[in-house]
Amino acid sequence: MSNIDRYRDRVRSYPAAASQAAFLLGGIGAGNVSVGPCGQLRDWEIFNWPGKGNYLPFSFFAARVTGDGRQPMTRVLESRLTGPHSKSHGYFNGELAGLPRLANSTMWATYPFVYVELSDPELPVKVTMEAYTPFAPGDEQASGIPAAVIRYHVRNPTAEDLTVSLVGSLANALGFQGYDVFGNLKLAGDVDNERRDSPHCRGLLYTNSADPDFEHFGSMAFATDEQDVTFRRTWLQGQWNDNAQDFWDDFTDDGRLDDSRAIDAPGSELDNFYDFSYLRLREKIGSIAVEKSIPAGQTATFQFAISWFVPNRPKGWIEVDDELAAHAAGQYPTIRNHYATRYADAWDVIDRLFAELPDLEARSRRFTDALYGSTLPAELLEAVANNIAVLRSHTCFWTEDGNFYGWEGIRDHVGCGKGNVNHVWNYAQTLAYLFPALERRMRRLEFEIEMSEDGELPFRSLQSLGEAKWQMVPATDGQLGAIVRAFREWRLSGDQQFLRDLWPRVDRAMEYALRRWDSDGDAVPDAQQHVTYDIEFYGPNTMTGSLMAAALKASALMADAAGDPDKADRYGHLAIQSAENLDRLCWNGAFYQQRLDDPDAYRYQFGRGCHADQLLGQFLAHTSGLGHVLPADHVRQALRSIYTHNLIDRMETVHTVQRVYALNDETGLVLCSWPNGGRPRFPFSYSDEVWTGVEYQVAASLIYEGMLTEGLTLVRHVRDRHDGFVRNPWSDNEAGHHYTRALSSFGLLTALLGFAVDLPGGVITFAPQASGDFSSFWSHGKGWGTYRQRRTEDGDLIAEIEVIEGELGATEVRTPAQRVEIVERARAEAR
Amino acid sequence: MSNIDRYRDRVRSYPAAASQAAFLLGGIGAGNVSVGPCGQLRDWEIFNWPGKGNYLPFSFFAARVTGDGRQPMTRVLESRLTGPHSKSHGYFNGELAGLPRLANSTMWATYPFVYVELSDPELPVKVTMEAYTPFAPGDEQASGIPAAVIRYHVRNPTAEDLTVSLVGSLANALGFQGYDVFGNLKLAGDVDNERRDSPHCRGLLYTNSADPDFEHFGSMAFATDEQDVTFRRTWLQGQWNDNAQDFWDDFTDDGRLDDSRAIDAPGSELDNFYDFSYLRLREKIGSIAVEKSIPAGQTATFQFAISWFVPNRPKGWIEVDDELAAHAAGQYPTIRNHYATRYADAWDVIDRLFAELPDLEARSRRFTDALYGSTLPAELLEAVANNIAVLRSHTCFWTEDGNFYGWEGIRDHVGCGKGNVNHVWNYAQTLAYLFPALERRMRRLEFEIEMSEDGELPFRSLQSLGEAKWQMVPATDGQLGAIVRAFREWRLSGDQQFLRDLWPRVDRAMEYALRRWDSDGDAVPDAQQHVTYDIEFYGPNTMTGSLMAAALKASALMADAAGDPDKADRYGHLAIQSAENLDRLCWNGAFYQQRLDDPDAYRYQFGRGCHADQLLGQFLAHTSGLGHVLPADHVRQALRSIYTHNLIDRMETVHTVQRVYALNDETGLVLCSWPNGGRPRFPFSYSDEVWTGVEYQVAASLIYEGMLTEGLTLVRHVRDRHDGFVRNPWSDNEAGHHYTRALSSFGLLTALLGFAVDLPGGVITFAPQASGDFSSFWSHGKGWGTYRQRRTEDGDLIAEIEVIEGELGATEVRTPAQRVEIVERARAEAR
Repeated sequence: MSNIDRYRDRVRSYPAAASQAAFLLGGIGAGNVSVGPCGQLRDWEIFNWPGKGNYLPFSFFAARVTGDGRQPMTRVLESRLTGPHSKSHGYFNGELAGLPRLANSTMWATYPFVYVELSDPELPVKVTMEAYTPFAPGDEQASGIPAAVIRYHVRNPTAEDLTVSLVGSLANALGFQGYDVFGNLKLAGDVDNERRDSPHCRGLLYTNSADPDFEHFGSMAFATDEQDVTFRRTWLQGQWNDNAQDFWDDFTDDGRLDDSRAIDAPGSELDNFYDFSYLRLREKIGSIAVEKSIPAGQTATFQFAISWFVPNRPKGWIEVDDELAAHAAGQYPTIRNHYATRYADAWDVIDRLFAELPDLEARSRRFTDALYGSTLPAELLEAVANNIAVLRSHTCFWTEDGNFYGWEGIRDHVGCGKGNVNHVWNYAQTLAYLFPALERRMRRLEFEIEMSEDGELPFRSLQSLGEAKWQMVPATDGQLGAIVRAFREWRLSGDQQFLRDLWPRVDRAMEYALRRWDSDGDAVPDAQQHVTYDIEFYGPNTMTGSLMAAALKASALMADAAGDPDKADRYGHLAIQSAENLDRLCWNGAFYQQRLDDPDAYRYQFGRGCHADQLLGQFLAHTSGLGHVLPADHVRQALRSIYTHNLIDRMETVHTVQRVYALNDETGLVLCSWPNGGRPRFPFSYSDEVWTGVEYQVAASLIYEGMLTEGLTLVRHVRDRHDGFVRNPWSDNEAGHHYTRALSSFGLLTALLGFAVDLPGGVITFAPQASGDFSSFWSHGKGWGTYRQRRTEDGDLIAEIEVIEGELGATEVRTPAQRVEIVERARAEAR
Repeated sequence: MSNIDRYRDRVRSYPAAASQAAFLLGGIGAGNVSVGPCGQLRDWEIFNWPGKGNYLPFSFFAARVTGDGRQPMTRVLESRLTGPHSKSHGYFNGELAGLPRLANSTMWATYPFVYVELSDPELPVKVTMEAYTPFAPGDEQASGIPAAVIRYHVRNPTAEDLTVSLVGSLANALGFQGYDVFGNLKLAGDVDNERRDSPHCRGLLYTNSADPDFEHFGSMAFATDEQDVTFRRTWLQGQWNDNAQDFWDDFTDDGRLDDSRAIDAPGSELDNFYDFSYLRLREKIGSIAVEKSIPAGQTATFQFAISWFVPNRPKGWIEVDDELAAHAAGQYPTIRNHYATRYADAWDVIDRLFAELPDLEARSRRFTDALYGSTLPAELLEAVANNIAVLRSHTCFWTEDGNFYGWEGIRDHVGCGKGNVNHVWNYAQTLAYLFPALERRMRRLEFEIEMSEDGELPFRSLQSLGEAKWQMVPATDGQLGAIVRAFREWRLSGDQQFLRDLWPRVDRAMEYALRRWDSDGDAVPDAQQHVTYDIEFYGPNTMTGSLMAAALKASALMADAAGDPDKADRYGHLAIQSAENLDRLCWNGAFYQQRLDDPDAYRYQFGRGCHADQLLGQFLAHTSGLGHVLPADHVRQALRSIYTHNLIDRMETVHTVQRVYALNDETGLVLCSWPNGGRPRFPFSYSDEVWTGVEYQVAASLIYEGMLTEGLTLVRHVRDRHDGFVRNPWSDNEAGHHYTRALSSFGLLTALLGFAVDLPGGVITFAPQASGDFSSFWSHGKGWGTYRQRRTEDGDLIAEIEVIEGELGATEVRTPAQRVEIVERARAEAR
């Protein structure tokens, strides 16, 4: 079975009509271009800015097929446009909607690879597009290349030999400033294309005339490592459609490209009167064609790559109208992307990409094999793998100084929720497990730069990008969660320097939290508690309370390791007290509720409600290897209550005036339910909403507690809502596309695998929720690989741990198996 | 049969999934709000600016149904949201996507009335929304009211009596400036709502704090003429969802509205730190509820109206980026809408609307009856009636001085193609026949204000709005067409003063055309000819040539009537010469081609091609009552060639790099085909495009020549493309929504009816393309009504002409009938 089809039955497929499906290519902190279900490149976001819906005119791939006695046939390698076709001006020239396309397409992806199978009864060949950007856990540089590999596998199923020319065209869009009213690109300066050859590839380098320090300076490259190649450096720049007409005529004629010919015949008068972008094209289009003979029954592959280098991004968090206006007025300094420290220009990127591609691809495939070759259930795989896109989307960015940043998510054209919001990133596990070094940078930012002297953590980290400190009240959940996550980062990495540096600050943050939120000394938050629902809870509740219990337990362990036995003792005792008091104050026999005499005394409480996040601290404790912080039987019962009361079979039965993320006959988990009545007149303003980040958190918690069926059922409902027709499978939206909270999904994997990591202690636990054959991917701060167990015929359980990159880093491995075999590959040097 | 269902089988229906369907409410030059297929109000364009996609938050209708022993049930009177549901932030609060909606909806319209039938298995009543803005041909004031009537017919099909409360909510959106990044309204100033009662209605007047001369000053009104009414002047302005929660709780409780109650309980901290539009609502929402008992088996109607008064619009044609920037910077003077000369404010509008509604509705119904009660084929009706929307869309505007203006069409948020472009309006017939006085204003503008001393007509009329004269070469087709249309306006109105005023100028324009475009004195244009395809033709061709022949023939007749026999003689001879020479130079035995030795010597020619507009002048001659200007047999043969060669069964077989308006398996008429080869390397840049305005022109021409089946087949293909799923049935798009060229569609009616009007001569001809029973609507400058003919049992043809408003204005009526009966209604005073 080829790489293409290997795991196809493990993942969902999307036909052309699944118009919302968009798979992001592009590295960490590098920007993106997405692949759509027709095989089209869409949503060009390579200019340091979100850009949903941004298209590049005249940019597409096409194939010309011919053979003995055969009429040549040329087709754009996309399936037909599915509509609606109701734009005010029809389809613009640059969309080339009138070039012939194919009848059928099917898209699927096994991260980081995406495939689009294209076929047409009239076309003698079958074509499968394959595209990816290299990806290797733990190696953020190899996973952070500003480029994409795009190749077409062309199969000749006929009994005769065929000649196929495959051409790609790409607009030079450097200095991208959006679109004018005619739908043409606005560019900040002049652009030019040049031919480049190097040992590993040949192609085109696109440049612009901007100063290298200017925000809109940059380069793009488009190249191939194939042999029989012809080029068109730039399309004819005539008037109207001259450019595309001339290109199409040239290519369809013989499948090869000539340089464009000038036109002597006079053009139109309009050009003398009107600076009309149809007539005076700003963008320069380049094309590369590759010709191959494909014998009967054989397949040939045509490989291309696209790279970009747009080094300067605005330094600061531009989000709301006045910030956008200030940026438009040129009032933002710039900072360089991390990739700008590693590459000289886009040609450097593409040349090194081709040079290193065999290795990069092998590593990427090993990741795919480890993940999709496991026995992990399909819905869990989808939740985990599809959300990796968040890290490589514009939700995140990575600067020259090595700092790593995250919005909450992105709007179509601008970020949303500035400053690594700690109460949202609270839920996120994916970065911590896959790229722990970047997650540690985030902890250092909040504890070392943002934290006040008194230990208050502003819930937005703004100062390292030169903005003023965030002045609002701190978030109780965010502050306590940051402490647990500092613990997690230490345990996942074994980075003792990290602990030494952070512990005094974590300690201060812990004391601040006790001082500020626990008014009566019972280690339970009861004062005004700002939380992730953008409001404040009052009185004891386990949403913040379980986080305090977890933070105290984590602090005790960190204090101990940092050589502070008094604090270890203090926090250890408080942790026990906190859990006991919470259980006493909030347990109602079926779940934990808010302890507040009059839930209408303040707006935005939940009172007797069953809150989906009532065990958020327990979730964080599990994913950090802290185990139970609340009584296990109550935790299980509370989760069962959430599953029973908050999972709504048909969301249309929930009548709500809040924002809506699931509706009609969709099934979703609401943030709060009131099975015993007592809904406040104004409950917290997101109480009826369905957030995938919380759904995954609850599902993972269910799995941690052994309720596998319930956990997976919940995940399946989430994924079914993201079917490509109504939502993008590669974007869980909340307050933005690619929303950070959905990175809780990695917790599903750690839960099912029973994965607990204590690298400082040298202990790793695999305790899967499976008694028989089972396998999974795993990853931590020193390496990644697979865990496999199988039941032998005589009833023994045998475990095999393969370390694919890095090292296992443990002296003790705990598994349920009678026998454990550890296989280390020779890639330790990659870490 | 009720009004609702009367013509339902005559028109297309649209289910909820036909998401592109949007029926415009609103008067001529008054702005719009549209009704969508779910029954929702969409595309709020009441602020003197196009606004496709603009929604008003918290604006909807809902019904609460109860009865003895019945659990009350409240539902939004819209069907469920059909998706995609993939917006970055889900559905905003203001969309209220989580309130319960209905399972089914079906939309249809019989202009000017739109209906949406709503039902749900769970809801005991059936509801039909009915909405319209009054419409009466020839009465632009009655058809130009800035308001919409919205009513709900609620049928109780059960065996028990029910009590139904119907509530409408509407945001005060005055000073609308778009949306902030949170999707909330940006308003230019403060807004307020007040209760108003008057003899004819009671409701709410919305105002804003702007200076009356400020562009964003205005008022809105929302009222009912029902009895048992309760109000909420403004919703609670709390934080988050307080407003909607409080409203919904109040209404669902008892179906009646109380004034909103203040909340004492503290809100959220965010409000102290952040000017967040969720927390500090700008808009004020008002609601009106009406309660009725509906006995078993009965239907009750709940009637509301919405009006608006936003008197000041920018004076000038704001279209491209620098104009938009100048406007944003406040650098445009304003001019008042025509409706501002007739009303004091929005309450004045709504009060008079209710006062005059019985009469206005009766007149509107008579129009509907005349049109849909005819035997006109459904596809022709749809093409004619649905495009009336162009006149009441933002494509057109109407200023305080009585001038009437048109863009070519509109983009989503800005106009497209400034200045009554004469080569596009060339095709338009609807305004000329339905509101001839406004069309005459356009002729006066171009001949009296824009025309140069030497007779050149700039193809854009800019000066009357204070802009500089358009400097480009004049359009040959536009200039010649303007002459024919001046003739048409005179003939349709019998306005001799119009002829006297314009003739000397028309004469100068005619001489200019001969001088400029006929280089060799054969009355055939052969010099450089700028035309509506935004390029220049060279050499003889009948696209411009037939227009010259028609313009000469029209000029001869006008000269004669204006008492200028020399000119009448000169132009009469030239008209004959022009036709003869054209036929000799361009006829190829099957159609008229371009006479140009080397069609590649200039770019953008068509050479030996078969051009869909080769008989454009003939179309204009027919619709103006000039009869044939080219030999009838050649005209017929040429039209047959166009139908044969240019109508493409599956548009995907046309491989084109041009803009695309029809694709995949759709059928469309391309502007040019080359059945004999000879396609230039760079043909004119729209040659492969499909323009509905040209399709209707060709279809009408086919019908004029007796090829009824072909003409109607072509129209059916156009309309099938506008199925509501992929395109809006109420918007034919070309370079903009609601494109002017599509107003050629009224020519289908004049063609089928064989309608020719010579009011100066007192002669009206009805020569329908039907030998037996037939009926149609008709309209001209003095009146409108119906024409009906029927074949008696003894073979006689009897015609009945009913004059519904105005007068017939003819001393001689020509029909194919043996007997003609003329019925005049007593509405002559309306003209």
